[in-house]
Amino acid sequence: MSGFRIDADRLRDRFDRFNEIGATERGGVDRPALTDENRAARDLLVKWFAEAGLDVRVDGIGNLFARREGRDPEADPVLVGSHVDSQRNGGRFDGVIGVLGALELVESLDDRGRETDRPIEVVSWTNEEGVRFQPDMLGSGVFAGVFDLGEALACEDREGNTVGEELERIGYRGEPVEIEPHSYLELHVEQGPILEDSGISVGAVEGIVGFSWLEGRVEGRADHAGPTPMDARTDALVPVADLIRGVRDLAGRSDDLVGTVGSLEVEPNSVNVIPERVSFTVDLRSPSDEAVEYAVVRVEELVERAARREGAEYTLERIMHVPSVDFEAEIVETVERAAEATGVSHTRLRSGAGHDASYLAGICPTGMVFVPSVDGVSHTECEYTDWADVVAGTDVLCQAVCERAGVEF
Amino acid sequence: MSGFRIDADRLRDRFDRFNEIGATERGGVDRPALTDENRAARDLLVKWFAEAGLDVRVDGIGNLFARREGRDPEADPVLVGSHVDSQRNGGRFDGVIGVLGALELVESLDDRGRETDRPIEVVSWTNEEGVRFQPDMLGSGVFAGVFDLGEALACEDREGNTVGEELERIGYRGEPVEIEPHSYLELHVEQGPILEDSGISVGAVEGIVGFSWLEGRVEGRADHAGPTPMDARTDALVPVADLIRGVRDLAGRSDDLVGTVGSLEVEPNSVNVIPERVSFTVDLRSPSDEAVEYAVVRVEELVERAARREGAEYTLERIMHVPSVDFEAEIVETVERAAEATGVSHTRLRSGAGHDASYLAGICPTGMVFVPSVDGVSHTECEYTDWADVVAGTDVLCQAVCERAGVEF
Repeated sequence: MSGFRIDADRLRDRFDRFNEIGATERGGVDRPALTDENRAARDLLVKWFAEAGLDVRVDGIGNLFARREGRDPEADPVLVGSHVDSQRNGGRFDGVIGVLGALELVESLDDRGRETDRPIEVVSWTNEEGVRFQPDMLGSGVFAGVFDLGEALACEDREGNTVGEELERIGYRGEPVEIEPHSYLELHVEQGPILEDSGISVGAVEGIVGFSWLEGRVEGRADHAGPTPMDARTDALVPVADLIRGVRDLAGRSDDLVGTVGSLEVEPNSVNVIPERVSFTVDLRSPSDEAVEYAVVRVEELVERAARREGAEYTLERIMHVPSVDFEAEIVETVERAAEATGVSHTRLRSGAGHDASYLAGICPTGMVFVPSVDGVSHTECEYTDWADVVAGTDVLCQAVCERAGVEF
Repeated sequence: MSGFRIDADRLRDRFDRFNEIGATERGGVDRPALTDENRAARDLLVKWFAEAGLDVRVDGIGNLFARREGRDPEADPVLVGSHVDSQRNGGRFDGVIGVLGALELVESLDDRGRETDRPIEVVSWTNEEGVRFQPDMLGSGVFAGVFDLGEALACEDREGNTVGEELERIGYRGEPVEIEPHSYLELHVEQGPILEDSGISVGAVEGIVGFSWLEGRVEGRADHAGPTPMDARTDALVPVADLIRGVRDLAGRSDDLVGTVGSLEVEPNSVNVIPERVSFTVDLRSPSDEAVEYAVVRVEELVERAARREGAEYTLERIMHVPSVDFEAEIVETVERAAEATGVSHTRLRSGAGHDASYLAGICPTGMVFVPSVDGVSHTECEYTDWADVVAGTDVLCQAVCERAGVEF
């Protein structure tokens, strides 16, 4: 037994062809959820699923399921996959390797004529990134019963298009799909520096940090930047600047908290007009749910104090909260055994990013296989993973699924 | 002699009709330079000029001149006017009262059958606001020889449309117009709180503060807001936040300096991505050119230090510099005499905002008449001036022009 070995050339060929869709000049991809590029990506996936003889279904929120039957068709299936929507001008690996790796699994099993006890369901979740529609991890959240389908379909992008309308438009609004997963496994890039720094190829993920997203707005008074004396101003941007510095200091003082002001809109945004209205977001994460809660309270205080000092009004609202997740020990051990069986270096670590696995962990034993991100970088066109690591990670993913689905390698 | 008295009803009627063009729901106007709304405003002006029997000409940068002949057609004319382009969602008074007031002057003269020694040229300058095309005060700058016509025509808006193309498109690209102004007078809202605070109707403007505009950009590294440790980040927004606070403190420590960060763009501007690129502007003004120069140096230091602390790259460039201007004493006294003659309360003051008069002052004796801005507010839809003040200011403007053009009231 030397463990599962995928067809690395086939995977590479698929990976390159897939990433021609929405390719950017700087080597990334631009395929946010339910765009034309996302439709093209889905179409290609469905074509490949069908060519592999899989039974493809689309559920009400547009998640794609592609089933390979098991010896026991009544057994709960092992779910394996990830997502193919991207950030705007995002990377080629994020999400994609998890879905193409799952497709590679079923084809490698076919190559060898091997059956599994349990069915395998390859899955591609809708809107993991949350860049166009909030909240993120929408498809897996609906599947796991965290979000109501009707509410999810009503989510709007900035132009007022709803998820439901856009699913209709691209032809991926399906019917409820009944699946009780036996377990869920997902291969993903780490998006942090731990694996690369330690020179290890695969991470057996123990859990996922919790996070909260806040959305705020400060209202000042637009005024001419020239004749308005400094002490007569209510500048909406100054309190937000103080908040940005405050979030940095707050996170900098803590070992287990990260905090980011990632987006900002200024109105009227003119060189010689005092900003009237500034909207912003704050992203707070920690393995400790208590640390996130504490940070949310501190951010509220920061905004309140900064706005008061300027005489400005403000609103602040939590738009997203995902508690930290601990994966079950048995499945972390499955991943570790798979790495041992395939001879791949491995370590345990915790994900700093949210994943569809966060919600799946609420309904079935869930595990993740991480591969290194060069420079720890993701959500950008420079995101990169050495191909050897992608192959090693996919071997480990396949080996782990085989253990869960009941076939020996 | 009770001084010049305009037809306040006619002016009011014109003002209301004019401001139907580009009217916003919240009571402002949206007519940035060379837009369709600006064209409609120009068309209406030209119609009214023609109805008043004025000789209308358009110069190479789209400035409109409407001439009323004097007893001595060879004499250098008195120029009187302002601008009709607006901020985005700006106010109804800014610029407009200066142009309509000048039209009211020539019609009031006609009503009374009065001639002036010198010709009068009513003028409406192109792109005073600088909201769509930078630099601002473009038309008056070309007229005064501060800007090269070819370079001015090549200025681009954010979509890459040039001033020249847009002038062609709206039908207002004309031929060189030869005018050697004897003097220039402009009626404008104060855009600051001095007149309102002191309960005085008219300001005799002594000069205009100098100002500089800086445009900067900080480059960090886009990265996932979750797994990236705080000490591994290069966040482009954090240094800009420090700069905003720094500009506020710098201006707050000085009596004669104001400083504003009015516009800001974040890329990729996503809740869970560390900002990669932030561009911003800084507006610095003072009656003292030395104070502006000192502030520019300090802002450079602030950006340099903040970027270095974050390990980020930056660029900073001065895109606009207008030295402070002192109006000639004789014309300030003309305005004061006009206020005395018309029985309007008056005081001397200095403009905190730039005006077309800044450039005109370089080529001829130049004066301005200010009327109060309620709450000192401008560049916003809430901008307001009591109608009685508009009428009083227009009386003073007309009286002053009559003195310069040679007719007694």
